Amino acid sequence: MANEFAVTRRVQFAETDMAGVLHFANYYRYMEETEHAFWRSLGLSVIAEVDGREISWPRVATSCEYFAPARFEDELELALIVANVGDRSVTHEVEFRRQGRRIALGRMTAVCCAMEGGGFQPVSIPESVRRKLSEAHGAK
Amino acid sequence: MANEFAVTRRVQFAETDMAGVLHFANYYRYMEETEHAFWRSLGLSVIAEVDGREISWPRVATSCEYFAPARFEDELELALIVANVGDRSVTHEVEFRRQGRRIALGRMTAVCCAMEGGGFQPVSIPESVRRKLSEAHGAK
Amino acid sequence: MANEFAVTRRVQFAETDMAGVLHFANYYRYMEETEHAFWRSLGLSVIAEVDGREISWPRVATSCEYFAPARFEDELELALIVANVGDRSVTHEVEFRRQGRRIALGRMTAVCCAMEGGGFQPVSIPESVRRKLSEAHGAK
Amino acid sequence: MANEFAVTRRVQFAETDMAGVLHFANYYRYMEETEHAFWRSLGLSVIAEVDGREISWPRVATSCEYFAPARFEDELELALIVANVGDRSVTHEVEFRRQGRRIALGRMTAVCCAMEGGGFQPVSIPESVRRKLSEAHGAK
Repeated sequence: MANEFAVTRRVQFAETDMAGVLHFANYYRYMEETEHAFWRSLGLSVIAEVDGREISWPRVATSCEYFAPARFEDELELALIVANVGDRSVTHEVEFRRQGRRIALGRMTAVCCAMEGGGFQPVSIPESVRRKLSEAHGAK
Repeated sequence: MANEFAVTRRVQFAETDMAGVLHFANYYRYMEETEHAFWRSLGLSVIAEVDGREISWPRVATSCEYFAPARFEDELELALIVANVGDRSVTHEVEFRRQGRRIALGRMTAVCCAMEGGGFQPVSIPESVRRKLSEAHGAK
Repeated sequence: MANEFAVTRRVQFAETDMAGVLHFANYYRYMEETEHAFWRSLGLSVIAEVDGREISWPRVATSCEYFAPARFEDELELALIVANVGDRSVTHEVEFRRQGRRIALGRMTAVCCAMEGGGFQPVSIPESVRRKLSEAHGAK
Repeated sequence: MANEFAVTRRVQFAETDMAGVLHFANYYRYMEETEHAFWRSLGLSVIAEVDGREISWPRVATSCEYFAPARFEDELELALIVANVGDRSVTHEVEFRRQGRRIALGRMTAVCCAMEGGGFQPVSIPESVRRKLSEAHGAK
């Protein structure tokens, strides 16, 4: 993928299960870690005050396909692209690779929300955030 | 859902995140717990020796949609159906409810594999397992 | 232990590791789940507003001894006692048993704190909370 | 600590809880990650075949003291020393620091075991492993 954002991540012991492989639910943690590292690289944070409002990004849909297992101490490459930027939502895709070979592909859609009174109120993505995400998207 | 299999599950503190809600990756753990409780109710286990082979069920695809957040100490109802039984794979769906209201919907497809030499070899679902899953499926 | 508070907890697949046993860090989650269930049984919550202040209970010390491994689908008995109630802190002990045999013993000390400006300020345990914990303690 | 082994580790979102801080049980995962990175630096692995036997290192005791909370995106320094090497056991200590300030101190004792028939049989630490751990210990 052109202009993707990538990090490396080693599979930890506590993340394996008794079948000897990275437990399937932990792939979602890896995706989120990659997403947050990407946001940091843009000078953004997923929990931030923007224009006087506390903004957060709850997920509305996530998915993952698994092509080959990952094992303890494997060093994975996690490559992220911004797949879509909507009015209120953003979708990231993360490809999992080991030694250049794709072993999983994940997808997460989050909605921009103002946190008010303990609840989540969907709002348009702040312009400052949209611009940075769109540039990364356009760069794809 | 007719003849669904259901368990209740309370949201634990360690499963929340700093946004104050059940972290999205933990829904996948809840789904798996429900699936395994269902299998136990059929007298099955996801790690078992069948016909002299060690059988395991790695995931090939999982997904979840989130409609409303869940919070610490919420008591959720997790309702499972067998959505499909293929030659080598099985798909379960789990609906998350709080006080009767659907708050999330998940889906997991696993492939029947013989564990050999540390690897996973896809095989046809053993007849004894297929019969039990299909009965539950047909009962839907 | 006399008058202990006990819950049962089944070991889940995602909580095992590639050595085939319950991962040691997860014992701490089990302890906390037991503690919180105990508090609920007293009508208390670990995150609550008391006398107009948001009260939380960060840990200052935790420990666990492990005597025998626990495995997938084991049903454990988790037995809690209040080991100490100080001016600002409380210590719970949790014994892990399988079929009556002790397999682990954990201990957690938490400090009563007012949450102010994102920080934790140690305060005396509110009288209403102290009374309930002390009664459970005295009942030991 | 002289000649300590250190890694840096950023606090991830999924590792926080609704109190807004790194959940206390996750400190144990951080300790283990540091320990395993240290072993890798010595050319060792915690799951390995030594002299024809599968060797593993179950924990017999773990503990942690917490001095100040850690928060999302904090970059922590995790500094490990080998505190003791016995005939069959090894103890590691891990100090957690943020910007040079100690915020937690953990300790883990593991026993060298041969995995046989699904069980753990304590054995003397293989000489090749002992030598490397002792050198690191002596270097303290």
